[in-house]
Amino acid sequence: VAGEGEFDFIARRLAPLTRGQPGAYGLKDDGAILVPSPGQAFAVTSDTLVEGVHFPVDEDPFKVAWKALAANVSDLVAMGAEPKSYLLNVVWPRSGPEARMDGFVDGLAKAQDAFGLTLAGGDTTSADGPWTISMTAMGEVPRGRTPRRGGARADDILVVTNQIGDAWLGLELRLGAVSIDDEDARAHFDAAFSLPFPPVALCAAINDCAHAAIDVSDGLLADLGHILSASGLRASVDLQDVPVSNFAKAWLAAQPDEAAARLLLATGGDDYEVIAAIPEDAIGRFEQRCEEAGQRVTRIGVLEAGEGLQVTFGESPVETDALGFTHF
Amino acid sequence: VAGEGEFDFIARRLAPLTRGQPGAYGLKDDGAILVPSPGQAFAVTSDTLVEGVHFPVDEDPFKVAWKALAANVSDLVAMGAEPKSYLLNVVWPRSGPEARMDGFVDGLAKAQDAFGLTLAGGDTTSADGPWTISMTAMGEVPRGRTPRRGGARADDILVVTNQIGDAWLGLELRLGAVSIDDEDARAHFDAAFSLPFPPVALCAAINDCAHAAIDVSDGLLADLGHILSASGLRASVDLQDVPVSNFAKAWLAAQPDEAAARLLLATGGDDYEVIAAIPEDAIGRFEQRCEEAGQRVTRIGVLEAGEGLQVTFGESPVETDALGFTHF
Repeated sequence: VAGEGEFDFIARRLAPLTRGQPGAYGLKDDGAILVPSPGQAFAVTSDTLVEGVHFPVDEDPFKVAWKALAANVSDLVAMGAEPKSYLLNVVWPRSGPEARMDGFVDGLAKAQDAFGLTLAGGDTTSADGPWTISMTAMGEVPRGRTPRRGGARADDILVVTNQIGDAWLGLELRLGAVSIDDEDARAHFDAAFSLPFPPVALCAAINDCAHAAIDVSDGLLADLGHILSASGLRASVDLQDVPVSNFAKAWLAAQPDEAAARLLLATGGDDYEVIAAIPEDAIGRFEQRCEEAGQRVTRIGVLEAGEGLQVTFGESPVETDALGFTHF
Repeated sequence: VAGEGEFDFIARRLAPLTRGQPGAYGLKDDGAILVPSPGQAFAVTSDTLVEGVHFPVDEDPFKVAWKALAANVSDLVAMGAEPKSYLLNVVWPRSGPEARMDGFVDGLAKAQDAFGLTLAGGDTTSADGPWTISMTAMGEVPRGRTPRRGGARADDILVVTNQIGDAWLGLELRLGAVSIDDEDARAHFDAAFSLPFPPVALCAAINDCAHAAIDVSDGLLADLGHILSASGLRASVDLQDVPVSNFAKAWLAAQPDEAAARLLLATGGDDYEVIAAIPEDAIGRFEQRCEEAGQRVTRIGVLEAGEGLQVTFGESPVETDALGFTHF
């Protein structure tokens, strides 16, 4: 990018994001040294976001940074891992204005402080192509105890955190595919889409209580499907039980077909909430801890022997041909 | 990419690369669980390679995979860290032929087995843009003991592993900028450029003996300059002391200006060898361990109080205006 070399960008703008974490060496070395706390393992996850694929072209760079970090933190939360460090690999478009570096670094700073992790390394380069951001995030989880997609058991209670579908409405608003008059609702949906906040306050509770967990990125039903197939279980979900915001309720009330509209919310994705399978003897404790952390949690079903996901709206079965989103 | 979804690519082609490492969960979860061995810390490094920037367009995908892994392993070796795990983030061009997946996965398999690490996670996507590969590699290093760029002290002896400049000759051959008749030499230089092999056998020796170390990616003199500036020291290097292969010697013999030709080798980069600063009381032990590991090591100077890098060719000072390579 014109006027600023790779080393300057790292030294002046990114190095402060290490917040003095000693193993990051102020980003002056080729790597970082990271040690988990006693009794802890590292949970490690990695995601790539490409302009025009995972976020809109000309998106506010603050939001790009925030969402990239949120997507990785969300995976850690679903593993019950407290976010600690991340590595950042950026490919800047050669044509891109230097101005977006400021917003991007500001977004990283705000998001990492909100989620509780610090920058430990990475690299930057530029190329003739779309803006591409890869992040690898590391969190700490007690050794030998991690909820997994495949860890659910029959009779576990399915819960989902906070609410589902606001991010999809934010995306549809962006695309001009829905129109909503209420300005507060529009702002709420846009923030849900572009500044998601995974339930980091629940890492320890998820780790302590959940047999299985997954974050909602592909869509509630698709991600629940991952738990079912990995665990070899079945479930029924009534769309009326899927928690939605009051803004989304107002939108639903204006739709001609509530079942179809609720299905859209439950398949939209980008929610960055958590679906967890909690055994009966831990559900009270889990709900208590969610309440203490100020996080809503809703029961949406019970796991059973068998396979497949049945979706209903009240008494009526709902067809779910195309669940979620596949890249490629 | 036509005909194969993201999940299939991961399940069928990438999952075997975990080699059963339990914390990778067969790539079926959103993250991996990694625990360093007792007394060890994790060294973590990350690099991005973009088609047309870091490797030629239409490069053999086997070589792309090999070099991407080698570049990350090289950083670990310079930290004295034994390679253990890596995460892989690939952005495939939408137009790219599925055929290159086979070569790419084959290159990953061969390189990870050669370097001693296994796949632990990552993600794949596709976009309208250049083929982009980000890797994050993790190695183990004894806690509290890591050679760093800034760790060198006056009187430390500067050494470099194996030989320098073959990769640059390989690149120049590709570009048609040099011509060499000897077929064996051409094959040697091409392999040095496209299938580099960092000295992984020296991780423990580097960790045990070196005050400072860095891998040679930007060029011998540029990377040595990073040690000097980070450590606040100076050095003189005679280009005649920089180790070169017999094939490179033959090329040098045919050049009109040997000093200028040797300078090109010492600034070319992509060598993925290691420069280390070894204290006098450890140099004998270090050289012994290099010999036992079958790795050549050459003394190229001594660190002194002061600043800057003086380059000579015999008695003559050599001008070094443009050392190394800056992205952006």
